Amino acid sequence: MDRGSIKAILSSVKSGRISVKEATEKLRHLPYEDMAFARIDHHRHLRQGIPEVIFASGKTEDQVVGIARAMHEKSRSFLVTKATREIHKALGIKDAVYYPSSRIISVGEKKQKKGDVLVLTAGTSDIAVAEEAAVTASFLGSRVQSVYDVGVAGLHRLMDSMGSLERARVIIVVAGMEGALPSVVGGMTNKPIIAVPTSTGYGTSLGGLTALFAMLNSCVPGIAVMNIDNGFGSGCLAHKINVRV
Amino acid sequence: MDRGSIKAILSSVKSGRISVKEATEKLRHLPYEDMAFARIDHHRHLRQGIPEVIFASGKTEDQVVGIARAMHEKSRSFLVTKATREIHKALGIKDAVYYPSSRIISVGEKKQKKGDVLVLTAGTSDIAVAEEAAVTASFLGSRVQSVYDVGVAGLHRLMDSMGSLERARVIIVVAGMEGALPSVVGGMTNKPIIAVPTSTGYGTSLGGLTALFAMLNSCVPGIAVMNIDNGFGSGCLAHKINVRV
Amino acid sequence: MDRGSIKAILSSVKSGRISVKEATEKLRHLPYEDMAFARIDHHRHLRQGIPEVIFASGKTEDQVVGIARAMHEKSRSFLVTKATREIHKALGIKDAVYYPSSRIISVGEKKQKKGDVLVLTAGTSDIAVAEEAAVTASFLGSRVQSVYDVGVAGLHRLMDSMGSLERARVIIVVAGMEGALPSVVGGMTNKPIIAVPTSTGYGTSLGGLTALFAMLNSCVPGIAVMNIDNGFGSGCLAHKINVRV
Amino acid sequence: MDRGSIKAILSSVKSGRISVKEATEKLRHLPYEDMAFARIDHHRHLRQGIPEVIFASGKTEDQVVGIARAMHEKSRSFLVTKATREIHKALGIKDAVYYPSSRIISVGEKKQKKGDVLVLTAGTSDIAVAEEAAVTASFLGSRVQSVYDVGVAGLHRLMDSMGSLERARVIIVVAGMEGALPSVVGGMTNKPIIAVPTSTGYGTSLGGLTALFAMLNSCVPGIAVMNIDNGFGSGCLAHKINVRV
Amino acid sequence: MDRGSIKAILSSVKSGRISVKEATEKLRHLPYEDMAFARIDHHRHLRQGIPEVIFASGKTEDQVVGIARAMHEKSRSFLVTKATREIHKALGIKDAVYYPSSRIISVGEKKQKKGDVLVLTAGTSDIAVAEEAAVTASFLGSRVQSVYDVGVAGLHRLMDSMGSLERARVIIVVAGMEGALPSVVGGMTNKPIIAVPTSTGYGTSLGGLTALFAMLNSCVPGIAVMNIDNGFGSGCLAHKINVRV
Amino acid sequence: MDRGSIKAILSSVKSGRISVKEATEKLRHLPYEDMAFARIDHHRHLRQGIPEVIFASGKTEDQVVGIARAMHEKSRSFLVTKATREIHKALGIKDAVYYPSSRIISVGEKKQKKGDVLVLTAGTSDIAVAEEAAVTASFLGSRVQSVYDVGVAGLHRLMDSMGSLERARVIIVVAGMEGALPSVVGGMTNKPIIAVPTSTGYGTSLGGLTALFAMLNSCVPGIAVMNIDNGFGSGCLAHKINVRV
Amino acid sequence: MDRGSIKAILSSVKSGRISVKEATEKLRHLPYEDMAFARIDHHRHLRQGIPEVIFASGKTEDQVVGIARAMHEKSRSFLVTKATREIHKALGIKDAVYYPSSRIISVGEKKQKKGDVLVLTAGTSDIAVAEEAAVTASFLGSRVQSVYDVGVAGLHRLMDSMGSLERARVIIVVAGMEGALPSVVGGMTNKPIIAVPTSTGYGTSLGGLTALFAMLNSCVPGIAVMNIDNGFGSGCLAHKINVRV
Amino acid sequence: MDRGSIKAILSSVKSGRISVKEATEKLRHLPYEDMAFARIDHHRHLRQGIPEVIFASGKTEDQVVGIARAMHEKSRSFLVTKATREIHKALGIKDAVYYPSSRIISVGEKKQKKGDVLVLTAGTSDIAVAEEAAVTASFLGSRVQSVYDVGVAGLHRLMDSMGSLERARVIIVVAGMEGALPSVVGGMTNKPIIAVPTSTGYGTSLGGLTALFAMLNSCVPGIAVMNIDNGFGSGCLAHKINVRV
Repeated sequence: MDRGSIKAILSSVKSGRISVKEATEKLRHLPYEDMAFARIDHHRHLRQGIPEVIFASGKTEDQVVGIARAMHEKSRSFLVTKATREIHKALGIKDAVYYPSSRIISVGEKKQKKGDVLVLTAGTSDIAVAEEAAVTASFLGSRVQSVYDVGVAGLHRLMDSMGSLERARVIIVVAGMEGALPSVVGGMTNKPIIAVPTSTGYGTSLGGLTALFAMLNSCVPGIAVMNIDNGFGSGCLAHKINVRV
Repeated sequence: MDRGSIKAILSSVKSGRISVKEATEKLRHLPYEDMAFARIDHHRHLRQGIPEVIFASGKTEDQVVGIARAMHEKSRSFLVTKATREIHKALGIKDAVYYPSSRIISVGEKKQKKGDVLVLTAGTSDIAVAEEAAVTASFLGSRVQSVYDVGVAGLHRLMDSMGSLERARVIIVVAGMEGALPSVVGGMTNKPIIAVPTSTGYGTSLGGLTALFAMLNSCVPGIAVMNIDNGFGSGCLAHKINVRV
Repeated sequence: MDRGSIKAILSSVKSGRISVKEATEKLRHLPYEDMAFARIDHHRHLRQGIPEVIFASGKTEDQVVGIARAMHEKSRSFLVTKATREIHKALGIKDAVYYPSSRIISVGEKKQKKGDVLVLTAGTSDIAVAEEAAVTASFLGSRVQSVYDVGVAGLHRLMDSMGSLERARVIIVVAGMEGALPSVVGGMTNKPIIAVPTSTGYGTSLGGLTALFAMLNSCVPGIAVMNIDNGFGSGCLAHKINVRV
Repeated sequence: MDRGSIKAILSSVKSGRISVKEATEKLRHLPYEDMAFARIDHHRHLRQGIPEVIFASGKTEDQVVGIARAMHEKSRSFLVTKATREIHKALGIKDAVYYPSSRIISVGEKKQKKGDVLVLTAGTSDIAVAEEAAVTASFLGSRVQSVYDVGVAGLHRLMDSMGSLERARVIIVVAGMEGALPSVVGGMTNKPIIAVPTSTGYGTSLGGLTALFAMLNSCVPGIAVMNIDNGFGSGCLAHKINVRV
Repeated sequence: MDRGSIKAILSSVKSGRISVKEATEKLRHLPYEDMAFARIDHHRHLRQGIPEVIFASGKTEDQVVGIARAMHEKSRSFLVTKATREIHKALGIKDAVYYPSSRIISVGEKKQKKGDVLVLTAGTSDIAVAEEAAVTASFLGSRVQSVYDVGVAGLHRLMDSMGSLERARVIIVVAGMEGALPSVVGGMTNKPIIAVPTSTGYGTSLGGLTALFAMLNSCVPGIAVMNIDNGFGSGCLAHKINVRV
Repeated sequence: MDRGSIKAILSSVKSGRISVKEATEKLRHLPYEDMAFARIDHHRHLRQGIPEVIFASGKTEDQVVGIARAMHEKSRSFLVTKATREIHKALGIKDAVYYPSSRIISVGEKKQKKGDVLVLTAGTSDIAVAEEAAVTASFLGSRVQSVYDVGVAGLHRLMDSMGSLERARVIIVVAGMEGALPSVVGGMTNKPIIAVPTSTGYGTSLGGLTALFAMLNSCVPGIAVMNIDNGFGSGCLAHKINVRV
Repeated sequence: MDRGSIKAILSSVKSGRISVKEATEKLRHLPYEDMAFARIDHHRHLRQGIPEVIFASGKTEDQVVGIARAMHEKSRSFLVTKATREIHKALGIKDAVYYPSSRIISVGEKKQKKGDVLVLTAGTSDIAVAEEAAVTASFLGSRVQSVYDVGVAGLHRLMDSMGSLERARVIIVVAGMEGALPSVVGGMTNKPIIAVPTSTGYGTSLGGLTALFAMLNSCVPGIAVMNIDNGFGSGCLAHKINVRV
Repeated sequence: MDRGSIKAILSSVKSGRISVKEATEKLRHLPYEDMAFARIDHHRHLRQGIPEVIFASGKTEDQVVGIARAMHEKSRSFLVTKATREIHKALGIKDAVYYPSSRIISVGEKKQKKGDVLVLTAGTSDIAVAEEAAVTASFLGSRVQSVYDVGVAGLHRLMDSMGSLERARVIIVVAGMEGALPSVVGGMTNKPIIAVPTSTGYGTSLGGLTALFAMLNSCVPGIAVMNIDNGFGSGCLAHKINVRV
């Protein structure tokens, strides 16, 4: 129920077309309907921060395609994460771009890019997650630069990227195994750092829990930590921070 | 904002005292105010299911007493869980009853009791949690019977309580260690069972996690499980089920 | 052994047809036989609360079909959970209904429905578990309504279901990931709530443990919690509570 | 080095064929050689308690068959656990018996059976592990009786087996899910009980850890607990206890 | 109700002193009473395997003394585990023996000892648990020998106890830290072995979980494992096995 | 070593005051010295993001005071977290402010405040951590507003703070137990959200792990998560994001 | 940038070919370039300790082959771990040796062997990891001897290898299940011991965590522990220790 | 039984004083006795690698002093770890040195120091563990240098210690929280690295498990990892490696 509907009821009361009692009853149910409306309004704002997205993992190809087409009708612009090449083909949407490493599909990415998001990875096995982060932030309108394989075992590679670090407004650091890279990067810059643990590793990497806990315990205070392999979420947060004015 | 307030605005519109535009603005903010109101109204309903309660653990004596007195002004009827004898004394509220085993204080308990809640424990070490459950359900208006120390190592003791089981409308089963009692009781009755794991035990009892997981994995389907040592919660749920009409 | 059998033995003793020693021996074994008998009698009662069920997971197709047919002879009315379409076909039972999302087979569902069980899910990935809950409760004779995808990220969708919440006698809330929905629903109603965590999620969702623990720690007291993905159990409990008179 | 070799050295010393110094040197290395010998001697004793066994899981078919044939040459009597039907065929050993449920192969089982080992299971899904236990104990020479599906949800079934419980010299109880059966059996008998948790279950059964921990925390003291799904080990222990004289 | 009581009722029926109806009523309650009786009768048998025991930990001094005195009236012979010196003094029972290392009180220990239970510890920190095991088994009537501090870091100490190993009918092995000793002992003997993990250690000893899991995974099959620090339970089991005839 | 020092060496080379060889040697050590220098320079920048801080927990009073005084000489402006009132007194620094709830000491807080950081808590037990966050962000120069006790069990309280949510540039959400509040807030706003789990709770709250994992699994993407009870870190991150231009 | 380059710049300044300002600018970037250089220089040293290696697991065949060929151009000598036979074929490198048990490919192994590394395994299932260790150490230039299947269940087999233990300069002990072998070996020798837990086992072996924790808790102090199944790492460390002079 | 005893028996055989049969019997028991002897002999060798040590934690003051005095009689040279100042005083041994930070007592430390062990810590809270390591290695005869507080949040401090790194023969790296320092040090040197996780930290540091797992997952291969807070063990291992010739 929007402002117009409220006005209409009030006008009817004023003109005597409906009684005060009838109007009271109509307005009593307003909260939820209006709340619903307020949410829809909020949704528009939300979209500035978070894209429409379909998490394809655990859904059938048919389900994903069905939801994606419905979404395409409504908003023209959305992401599908953890998608397969088959889903991409089945979509039949012309401007849907498929990123095979990260298995993300981007539809209707923003042309205009702003700010500077830097995505770093510790190793080559972390690239899939990093790409998901980069595609997400870029889709939302952030300018993104990626530097891969600058892990702590060879710090000189990271030193070579000093310039990129200094230009960035926000830095996403993707690392598996011991998850030490965010601490090292955090010791070299005052930019907000988003740490994304990956499930890269074996044995006591515990599917990424070790990297996650290491990042949460960083001796550098103030590092933002995401769920394991959550490239998408880190892209959303990075964009939100990047576009703060 | 209640029905009366809405009516007042509408009457003002009708009489021309305020304009339609002014009234629209007033009502536009209704959702949140009304939501707040709805909550307050709901709260009253909620109180039928869940008592006002102060969780004393981790608060200073002063804080607990402060909150309790404020609450006493407003509702005259509430619980304090995990309280000390010192808190009870400091309260200075005449009808505040202190239960030393379960360290619960009950203020303004309902006189009228309905239905039939049965509280069973596996061992004597589980009695503190069971008493918290019993006091809570009784406080809310349920008739409560407690039978202690009927664990699976001597099933005949449980068999002796067959009559109580048959009379009960809902059964709370409190057990630590291997947490087997709810399964055994569940095999003997068709009443709703609420299982409360306790931290009784040592080593691989893991502070109650073993009993909790055992209860969640009961071969008897449909057992309601609570957090470890959560006598209070089980009392609330038991009362809700007990008073269904 | 019922009252009649005891009487018969006693009459035979009285009339001298059997000796005191023989009768003593017969009665000595009474407890277990009678116990067994009492169990059988109980079983009939139990069926009011819990359906006959075959948990198909981890059994071969042949085993499931064999047990199902034997059960069909005896009771005409049972469920098979975690079943495959192949099992459904192989059963060859005319009124066996197969639900593909939840992979449950229902045979001989009750026609008469009573009360009002509401099943909510946080997301679309939780629907399989919710359907298992709904089919189970409905099979047992409860009237069931399902509302899906009303998670906490968009509370207005939940607000739209306020009416359903108010009509329900008991509410099943199915949620994965952070498992927050039962707390939010619990803050809005005084009905008994059964929370079912699902294995939806990745990384630190830990196969549903995170949702489970979140539900056990709800700030709303008295929420009944089930094992991860345990739709069947929640359906049983909901029906038990729903039909309390 | 056996008694004969020592004698030979000593005779040589006595006859002067070798010097005291040479003999000292020879005997100085005796411990390890003799130790090796002692072990072999011990091995014979060990075989009364523990069979020669090949754990097939994680080995290739070729490897298992190779080891099995070598073993067959030497001892004629051994077990292969976690074997496939293919391995059984490939063995080409005439008296090798294959048990499909438990996937165990028995070669050269003892004809003579002694004592009385009772194997109970809580559910039908626990039968594979129970059969492994039964085959192992029987292979070693124990008389074994198995009673399946007597879980705590229907205690009358267990009560019907009271006679078997009283005859048994040692009882193996196999259970998954909440692992409560050993406690209940332990409350009914004074026989040594060996509890075997199984990985039957889902969610918080945690692959058998819940049943294991429940068994370790039994309120009945003195229950022997084995690793998850360790039917073989329980058969060994049961036999050892069964044949104590 | 024992065999004699049943006989008395039957005789009264036969002689006409009581009617069939009266007798039926008396016998109708037999199951539970008889069950209770059977338990009591069983209890006597149980006592051969498991002593009456009070687990003092988590009980107040008053509670322990109260239960102990009641027990003393009835059975004259029982244990108190995890007791304090204060409890021992407060008991005021003349023949109550207090063992300070293991904090166990033994009242009315059997004079007559049978068989041969050997208790080994890996280190000196494991002695408290070992003593609890030894006192328990001895209390029940087993002859017990203890050899301490024979851990795997110096196997020659264990070798020196070879004679004790060969004499024993059952061996309790108590070890913390890496829990390796039961495997080593198990490789040297065919006697039943009961492994008791202790909470000795720090860091990844995880309060005894590491020793527990190591023992459950022993490469020597058939080792009986107890809960962490459960000396009492191991004493019960050892006695049960020791006195098998 | 800064640009000026390099220039000086080069000028000396040019003028012949030092030889090429001497200059080479001087410059060879440049990397580390310069690195050290760069760090110092960086440190100044870092201080815009992260304050000098002493983590008092696990240090003696003497150690904390010693470090604090040394720090005071150098920078005049720093924090002490997890401090006691005794430490505050012992410091003897005039403008050191002690916050008793959060046990944080602030020395030389910035007068000038910018932007808008909102700190929310789910319950009253989360206030200590929230205050640590607020003091830290304020110390660094952020304008901070705190709203406490707006947990999901009564959403209307949160709704009343809608205005604060809309004004904020970044929101810190502090919650224990089920950790659901960040998800609910995240569904209502497009501002960057920093979620801080607290150790508030018992049983399966697992010292805050449940809240932590719930936050990492939020159905609202892009929430920044901190270590358990890490108010300080969240204050640092909030300030960094708040002051982005 | 090396000493020569610095000298050249300085000479140019001296001779006036470049200005002080130009030289300053060139040298200002020195730290990172020089750092990079230092790393490259270090890398050469590193190669004495750690081989170039490609961790094939989780990479596509194409990726592994691409990296391997690039590496072959540069260094002629490297390892591929967790490789498949297909990768070995696809490499097309003449002197690439494939080890099928451990799935490691060695290219350009050193001919000259030094010192003495002994690799022991507890069981036959641990051989794959042991072989990875042996191939790695041998590749780097260590002389390696392997003795398999000397687990603690039959210590005499270990005693037979006493000579090898005494000859070794460093000993790698590979064990799964209860992980006891390193403790036993550590009790028999004063050589540095590297313990490698393997994922051999089931149930509470927890994928190797039990063996890992057991090794970390060894009662023999000073045992070096590696990640689960980390044969490669243990080979690197053994070589480093073996070649210390 | 030593070489002399064997010689004596052989001489008696030669001279005819005892028969071959008698000598055979005497020698048959040789293994265990000789084994014991061999162990004692081995012990001497062991002492080159591992000091005699008393782990005081969990022992009474009396027990520690008793063991220490007995040890002092025998070997004059030993350590007491986790000791209190009271124990030090009570010892009454003149040359017993007490280190208050690490609570270690050293008696009879070697004067002669060899090689070069470097001990690094990430933070000041790790110094207690580092000191235990340093005292142990020094006690055994290693020359030890310690550099504290060079954690990854400020890498330049580590860079300043480059010279120490290059001189060291083996490096102990002590770190809590995220445990990243060993990886960074490992990237800068080819020396053997021993990583010691500490329990420094809170929340998800999990009492040191996070640092431990991070170290086990280091991207730098071949790092030796110790149990949490195990300074003593790392000192032993470092000395063993340091003195390899």
